[in-house]
Amino acid sequence: MIDKAGGKLVYVSSGCIKSSEGDLPIRLKLILDNLSKVITEYRPQFAAIEQVFVNINPKSALQLGQARGAAICATVLHNLDVAEYTALQIKQAVVGNGHANKDQVQQMVMRILKLESSPTADAADALACAICHAHGGFGLGKFGLAGYRMKRGRLV
Amino acid sequence: MIDKAGGKLVYVSSGCIKSSEGDLPIRLKLILDNLSKVITEYRPQFAAIEQVFVNINPKSALQLGQARGAAICATVLHNLDVAEYTALQIKQAVVGNGHANKDQVQQMVMRILKLESSPTADAADALACAICHAHGGFGLGKFGLAGYRMKRGRLV
Repeated sequence: MIDKAGGKLVYVSSGCIKSSEGDLPIRLKLILDNLSKVITEYRPQFAAIEQVFVNINPKSALQLGQARGAAICATVLHNLDVAEYTALQIKQAVVGNGHANKDQVQQMVMRILKLESSPTADAADALACAICHAHGGFGLGKFGLAGYRMKRGRLV
Repeated sequence: MIDKAGGKLVYVSSGCIKSSEGDLPIRLKLILDNLSKVITEYRPQFAAIEQVFVNINPKSALQLGQARGAAICATVLHNLDVAEYTALQIKQAVVGNGHANKDQVQQMVMRILKLESSPTADAADALACAICHAHGGFGLGKFGLAGYRMKRGRLV
């Protein structure tokens, strides 16, 4: 969660919802309920989510899809607009390089949001996605996909 | 939607939510809202959903996962218990043969629920899933997977 005050981006909150235990409906409910709580608490104006490229195996793609579906349901339940950005777009927006690694993303997120310590990798990814949206996003067409390779469903 | 009165199964309603147009959040919202409406109208005690085997391509698996996530979110929002059954279990429960084809499923659904005309294939699948749950479901271990082949992510 970040705030945009004028041209300045301000850190608000970040975290990770873990739902690895229990049956599928219970796990999806956990994502739905916790994300709803966050939205109700902070009342954001927009939501952004990382778009995935699906060269991962079908079982992981199904699970990712279900989790993603629950997360998006939480946002639409609160009438939030959801923007989707690829990892490539996010890295371009945050680091200026679509090939940037996790460390570089974490470092730039810390610098842009003036954080004293590094958020976890997943929280940094989410903040990076928010920063990308706050910067107006990037048209994928601008960069094209040539020269990028995919790893675990993402362009790297 | 079916009702179980004593040992008798009674047809209540059936249908299909189509969400092929628009952006992903809008499509998921359509599933969530429409299924919520159905649940609010009929107040069922249980929900059942077909479990998928994911030998389909990753892109379809992701999309199926997202739609499935939204459908399950609708049920958990209403505190409904959701049971999952494989196509194999459903066909065993309805036709008595895990290898049954679509036509046989539609015919048996019509006969069990005393319908005068055949529901669409998707509606028949959903009714068959409900019938399977009403019959107490089947443990997959009972039948095993040997001898079954998969087609578009389902055991046939």
